[in-house]
Amino acid sequence: MDYLAKVPGFKFGGMHCGIKEDGLDLALIISESPCPAAAVFTQSQVIAEPLKVCGEILGKTGLVQAVVINSGNANACTGTKGNEAVWKEIHETSAKFDLNPDHVFISSTGVIGREFPIGNVVKGISEIGRHLGNKPENSLATATAIMTTDTQPKGSFQHYERHGNQISMAGIAKGSGMIHPNMGTMLGYVISNENIATDMLKKALLYAVDKSFNMISVDGDTSTNDTVLVMSNGKTGAPLITSEEDAGYLQFRDALTTLCIELAKAIVDDGEGATKVIEYHVKGLGSEKECQQVIKTLATSLLVKTAFFGKDPNWGRLLGAAGRSGVQFNPELVDLSFVIENTNLPLLTNGEPVELDEANARSLLEARNIRVVFDFNQGSASAIGWGTDLSYEYVKINAEYTT
Amino acid sequence: MDYLAKVPGFKFGGMHCGIKEDGLDLALIISESPCPAAAVFTQSQVIAEPLKVCGEILGKTGLVQAVVINSGNANACTGTKGNEAVWKEIHETSAKFDLNPDHVFISSTGVIGREFPIGNVVKGISEIGRHLGNKPENSLATATAIMTTDTQPKGSFQHYERHGNQISMAGIAKGSGMIHPNMGTMLGYVISNENIATDMLKKALLYAVDKSFNMISVDGDTSTNDTVLVMSNGKTGAPLITSEEDAGYLQFRDALTTLCIELAKAIVDDGEGATKVIEYHVKGLGSEKECQQVIKTLATSLLVKTAFFGKDPNWGRLLGAAGRSGVQFNPELVDLSFVIENTNLPLLTNGEPVELDEANARSLLEARNIRVVFDFNQGSASAIGWGTDLSYEYVKINAEYTT
Repeated sequence: MDYLAKVPGFKFGGMHCGIKEDGLDLALIISESPCPAAAVFTQSQVIAEPLKVCGEILGKTGLVQAVVINSGNANACTGTKGNEAVWKEIHETSAKFDLNPDHVFISSTGVIGREFPIGNVVKGISEIGRHLGNKPENSLATATAIMTTDTQPKGSFQHYERHGNQISMAGIAKGSGMIHPNMGTMLGYVISNENIATDMLKKALLYAVDKSFNMISVDGDTSTNDTVLVMSNGKTGAPLITSEEDAGYLQFRDALTTLCIELAKAIVDDGEGATKVIEYHVKGLGSEKECQQVIKTLATSLLVKTAFFGKDPNWGRLLGAAGRSGVQFNPELVDLSFVIENTNLPLLTNGEPVELDEANARSLLEARNIRVVFDFNQGSASAIGWGTDLSYEYVKINAEYTT
Repeated sequence: MDYLAKVPGFKFGGMHCGIKEDGLDLALIISESPCPAAAVFTQSQVIAEPLKVCGEILGKTGLVQAVVINSGNANACTGTKGNEAVWKEIHETSAKFDLNPDHVFISSTGVIGREFPIGNVVKGISEIGRHLGNKPENSLATATAIMTTDTQPKGSFQHYERHGNQISMAGIAKGSGMIHPNMGTMLGYVISNENIATDMLKKALLYAVDKSFNMISVDGDTSTNDTVLVMSNGKTGAPLITSEEDAGYLQFRDALTTLCIELAKAIVDDGEGATKVIEYHVKGLGSEKECQQVIKTLATSLLVKTAFFGKDPNWGRLLGAAGRSGVQFNPELVDLSFVIENTNLPLLTNGEPVELDEANARSLLEARNIRVVFDFNQGSASAIGWGTDLSYEYVKINAEYTT
C-alpha cells in the first residue's frame, strides 16, 4: 500500500479523530500547489452535503489542493446543519494549511441521517498535520482511514513515460459495504504528476469511470456519497495536454482506466459476503452501451448470483437475464461459455445447449474467479464488467448487522 | 378453489401424464364455443416455443376454445423439435375434441432447454377428456396441474351485474418458482361469461396486467414462458361491449384488474423463501409511470429486501433506492412511513428523520405484511406494487436446489 508514496508533490495521512469508536477515521491528501482536478459523483437524487457544496465549487474552479475525507458518518440527510459542517471543514482546512478555500474538497462516508460530528472533525483537522508525509506508511494510513466495512485497504498504481518524463498515477478506494442504518459508499481518489488541463482530465475520468466503477455491482445499490476525484499536479517536464488529439491524452486516459479497473475489481473482490468474483465479457452486439446493459442485468440478477453461489452451470438463468435486459438479440445466435483457470467450458453454441459433464462443471465452479463469455454474434462491440455471487453471508451482513 | 366452477360454459380438469415424477402435470380448459380471447406474453427476448406459435395464431384469430397447459417442462430453448411439439399438441387437441386448430392455445412451464416429452403430452391429451368437468374438484385439479414449485394452487373470483345479468370471472395462476436448471414462470388464465369484443378484451387485459402482474417482484427475473390469457364466452344476455365508452367496459376492466391483483398478490405471498410481503404505495409524483418506476426499484433492491428480512426500519435504504430509480424528486419534500396492522409508523417528514422508538419499530416489523407509503409531495399521481424480503431461505432454494 505504498502507492500514493510513488507520486511526487503530495503529502497524505490518516488519523483517529473519534467518529468511529476506534480505528482511523480522518484522511487528508494535500498537494504542494493547486492541481487541475475533476470528479464524478453519485447519480442518486439523494446527495450528501459535501457533494452538493464541493461539486459546485470544483465545477467553478477546476482546481483542488487538499482533500479531507472522514469515515464513520456520511453527512447525508443532515439538512442545514450538515451543510454548515461542510463549510466549517473547508474553512478550518483552509486556515490551518494556508489554502484558498475554493481549493479544498470534502468527502464523507458512513452512517447517513445522523448528526455530523463536526467537533471531532475540526479537532482532527487541527491535528492531522503531524500525521502527514509521503512515505508508504502514510499511504497505508490514508487508504485505511477512508474504510467503512471494507476488510482491507485498496490501492493501485500505474506509470508511463511521456516526452522522456516518468508519469506516475496512484489511487486509493473504498467499497460498497453497508452499515446501519444505511448505505455503503464507493469513494476513489487518484493523484498524478501528469500535466493535463482540467477539461481533458474530466474527459479522461468520465471515460475511465464508465469502464470501471460503473461496471461493477455488488448489490446494485448506489449511495448518497459516491465520489471519484482525480488531481494532477503537473510536476513533470512534459508539455501540457490540452487536446484529445494529443497522444499524451490517450496515454493518460488508458493508464487512468487501467488504474480505475484495478480499484473497481478490488472493491468487488471485497464485496460483502462474496464467495465469487464474476468477470462478464459480453460481445457481438451493435454497441458498447448494449453490451454494458446486458452485463448490468446479469451482474444484478438474483437468480444468476445465487446460481454462482450454488456452483451451478446454469446457462438458463444467464440467458434469461440477458433476455430481459432490454437489448434485442436472436437467441439462436448466442454462444456462451465459462472460462475458469484457463479451462474453457462451453454452455451454448448457436443457442443450443452443449452436452455438459455436470460433475466436472461443478468442480470447476469451486473456483473464486469465473469469467463468463457471452457472444451474441450480431455485431462487433464488446464490454467487460464485474459482479459477485449472492451468499448466505450477504443476507446475514445486510439483514442482521444490528443484532 | 372452486373458482373456475362458478363461470358457466367451461369445462376443465387436470391429470398426471408423466412429465413430473408424480403429481398433476397436464391441464385443459375448454369452452362450449370459441371465445374472444387476448393474451400478454413475456417481454424477454428468449421466448418459449408455445408462445411463438400461439401468440401468432391468437393475434390473427382473436379466438380461443381450448387451452392445454403442462408443467414440468417449459419447451423453451428446444429449437425445431420444440416447435414441432407445439403443433403436434395443437393438432392432437383439435382432433380429439373436434376443434378448429386455430382455436387451441398451448402453454408450458418447468425446466428449460430439455427435450419436450411430447409422447407423454399426446397420451395425456387422448385421456384428459375423462378428467374434465365443471365441479370444484375439477377447478382445483386444473389450478394444481399448472404448479411447479408453488406451494399451493392460486385462484380468484369476481362478479358483477350488467343489464340485469350476472357476469362472473374466475382466474387461476402459478408463480415464480425456480427449478433446475432454470427459470420459473408466471402463468395466469382468466375465464368469464362476459360479452366483450376481442379488442376491448385486449385493452382491458393490458390495463389490468400493468397494475397487477407487472407490479410484483419476487426476484426481478422474468421468464421465457410468462403468459396471461383471458377468454370470454359471451354466455350472458348483456349486449356486446365494443367501446371503451361503454360503462360495461369499465365494469369488466375493473373486475379483471381486481382479479389480477388478487392473483398477483397470491404469487408474491407464495414467493420463494419470502418471510414478508411488502405493499408499496408511492404517490405525489407527476405520473403513474414514475410512481411505478420507484416501486420497481424499491421492490428489487437487495438492500431494501434484506432490511425487511432483518426487521430493520431502514428508511435510508428506501430513500437511497428511490434516489437511484431515475425519477427526479426533491428529497426535502419526502414523507415516508410504514403501516403495519393499522399502526402508522412515520420515518421521514419533509425529508427529515422522525425520532423513532427502535424497539417498538422492530417489534412491529415482526409482521408478515408491511405497507410502505412514500409521498414525494410534488404531484398527484400514485401507484401500488408488491414485493418480498430476501431471506436465507431464498438463497438456499436458488443456490442449492440440486443438492
